[in-house]
Amino acid sequence: MKVMIMGMDGYLGWPLSMYLSGRGHDVCGVDNMSRRKNVVEIGSWSATPIKPIKRRLEAYKEATGKDLTFYRGDLVEPSFVDVVVEKEKPDCIVHLGEIPSAPYSMIDVEHCNYTHVNNVIGHNNILFAIKDHVPNCHLLKLGTMGEYGTPNIDIAEGFFEVDYRGRKDKLPFPRQPGSWYHLTKVHDTWNLMFANKIWGIRATDVMQGVVHGVMTDDMVNDDLLTRFDFDEVWGTAINRFCAQAVVGHELTPYGKGGQTRGYLALRDSMQCFKIAIENPPDEREYRVFNQYDELYSVNDLAKYVSKVAEEYGLEGKIWNIENPRVEAEEHYYNPDMEHLPNLGFKPTYTLEKELHITLPKLMEYKDRIEAKRDSINPKIKWTA
Amino acid sequence: MKVMIMGMDGYLGWPLSMYLSGRGHDVCGVDNMSRRKNVVEIGSWSATPIKPIKRRLEAYKEATGKDLTFYRGDLVEPSFVDVVVEKEKPDCIVHLGEIPSAPYSMIDVEHCNYTHVNNVIGHNNILFAIKDHVPNCHLLKLGTMGEYGTPNIDIAEGFFEVDYRGRKDKLPFPRQPGSWYHLTKVHDTWNLMFANKIWGIRATDVMQGVVHGVMTDDMVNDDLLTRFDFDEVWGTAINRFCAQAVVGHELTPYGKGGQTRGYLALRDSMQCFKIAIENPPDEREYRVFNQYDELYSVNDLAKYVSKVAEEYGLEGKIWNIENPRVEAEEHYYNPDMEHLPNLGFKPTYTLEKELHITLPKLMEYKDRIEAKRDSINPKIKWTA
Repeated sequence: MKVMIMGMDGYLGWPLSMYLSGRGHDVCGVDNMSRRKNVVEIGSWSATPIKPIKRRLEAYKEATGKDLTFYRGDLVEPSFVDVVVEKEKPDCIVHLGEIPSAPYSMIDVEHCNYTHVNNVIGHNNILFAIKDHVPNCHLLKLGTMGEYGTPNIDIAEGFFEVDYRGRKDKLPFPRQPGSWYHLTKVHDTWNLMFANKIWGIRATDVMQGVVHGVMTDDMVNDDLLTRFDFDEVWGTAINRFCAQAVVGHELTPYGKGGQTRGYLALRDSMQCFKIAIENPPDEREYRVFNQYDELYSVNDLAKYVSKVAEEYGLEGKIWNIENPRVEAEEHYYNPDMEHLPNLGFKPTYTLEKELHITLPKLMEYKDRIEAKRDSINPKIKWTA
Repeated sequence: MKVMIMGMDGYLGWPLSMYLSGRGHDVCGVDNMSRRKNVVEIGSWSATPIKPIKRRLEAYKEATGKDLTFYRGDLVEPSFVDVVVEKEKPDCIVHLGEIPSAPYSMIDVEHCNYTHVNNVIGHNNILFAIKDHVPNCHLLKLGTMGEYGTPNIDIAEGFFEVDYRGRKDKLPFPRQPGSWYHLTKVHDTWNLMFANKIWGIRATDVMQGVVHGVMTDDMVNDDLLTRFDFDEVWGTAINRFCAQAVVGHELTPYGKGGQTRGYLALRDSMQCFKIAIENPPDEREYRVFNQYDELYSVNDLAKYVSKVAEEYGLEGKIWNIENPRVEAEEHYYNPDMEHLPNLGFKPTYTLEKELHITLPKLMEYKDRIEAKRDSINPKIKWTA
């Protein structure tokens, strides 16, 4: 299958390109390299020393004999998107080419707007290019479980049956996102649902949980590593805790630490994408996949990191700090997750198992984390 | 009260500026004049010969002795918005400064993206300016009843109580908008709800029905008229039918004509805004007003226009044509509307009564409609 990966140079895009290529798919991709620039902007870098895209592609060819086709360009440019989609005529587009940071979007009006334009306009351009050139293409769009927020009822998988004042309807499950970034993902979701309605674009809308881990089996040497961000802006809570453990800093959950989310190992994220790609939606179908494996609170994450860190001789003291975000720190959380298991998804790596791979790998690059340790503590606040 | 009207030169912005000024408020406003340009772009113009903004302001001063302060500038520029809000320090901002056309947004990717950036980024800039300079300012933001779409259950006023699998929550009512334009309004709604949550911006989010009519009592001479669009892109169904009746063209409802929506006379829209402004939300409150008076199907509109047109010697044959849109042509529609009546709103003009003012006024400008009569028939299609 010809698969085009938007955001090929990213944390997920790079390992997914190798994963799909290694499993018989013809993979091409697009990136504007903005993630590298945006991490430098806030004074940090990836703990893993990632190679320039050119070297990545060469190293993959050396290791496997396989070619990955790469286009450098910006999804915000409609003509660029139009041209690459028309040229490659993919059977499936995996759209990972968005700015994925809540704190980055919260810095100021410029970062809020940049995230909006990059994510929403880039996605619009993909929708129009599919409509114009590959109307039967399957769009696998990356959303986030964070779109739903933390309602006091079960979270359905995209749609729910509503019984209201004696009448019934099946409606989109309400979204209550918690940052400008999360809002842009919600905007994309509604735009995709509409494009499906009017043009029949077949789509899988993936509400993914937080992905953890840094290694996949395709990373046979360090030239093939993916990025691992650990700063307050680009690092997830797990990544920050791992980095803190490696450099001997206390692990710092925000607030009470009861914020509960869905988590998924990097390898299992790859597995989920592959299942969705190889089992595309029907013609004109729009489907939503909630994509996660385990539920943890932020305090749980800290405890697991602390426990595994001690096995490697690291100290992992936990020190809850003031929460820079506006979010519920204790809440109900029970999202459905049936569509992917029904297609055969079986998780293979728990958080604890994955940490036994991630932590020793990060210890190899302790000096890189140490050099940017100041970037871990939160400075960006949600309140006025 | 100091009121700042974003979109002062528009169909609603201009009469609202006069209406509020005449009732003791200190009114300033902003416009980038894009509506005039965008109507010319698609080959049409306002049936009423509207004056340049400079002349409008002079004519209002001549008629009333009152000054309106005007800033020409683009809400998409964050620094401009920041400066005018800081300078004027309004007690209330009425945000009408958005591109309001569904068909315009459906022309192609450029018009879709232009509508997105203009509406969403302009609104974001207002939110940040309020947060930074007038945190207690009341933002009265214009949304649309079209955000809700046509669900098979009653439409709540912003939020609804959900009972799902034995648990309860009060959640944002799901939106199912029917064009890129309507989607941008939904995006704004979620963004405003979030700004309220994190910064406590006090806000009235107005889900307004379709406004009809062209005259208010402040229009004491024709230099003070507001615009009246009648083409397929900028004209509502009522406006198109009125224009068709005036030039002897069949009235052309789209499809079966069972599409039902909420409608409101221009004068009553002014009344609603005034009530909301003079009864602001509490500190940190976010409230939603469904703002309409009567429910009509498109066929009902055609029948009323036809009936009133005949009283003025016009023929108003009805000829349902192929629907260029993707929308339900027969559906349940029962939106709540309690918040404004609870604050004292009493509608004063039915559709039929308003048509007795609108049609004779348009007959004065029959030649202007005749000159652009080709712009009425639909060419922009929703499908691929």
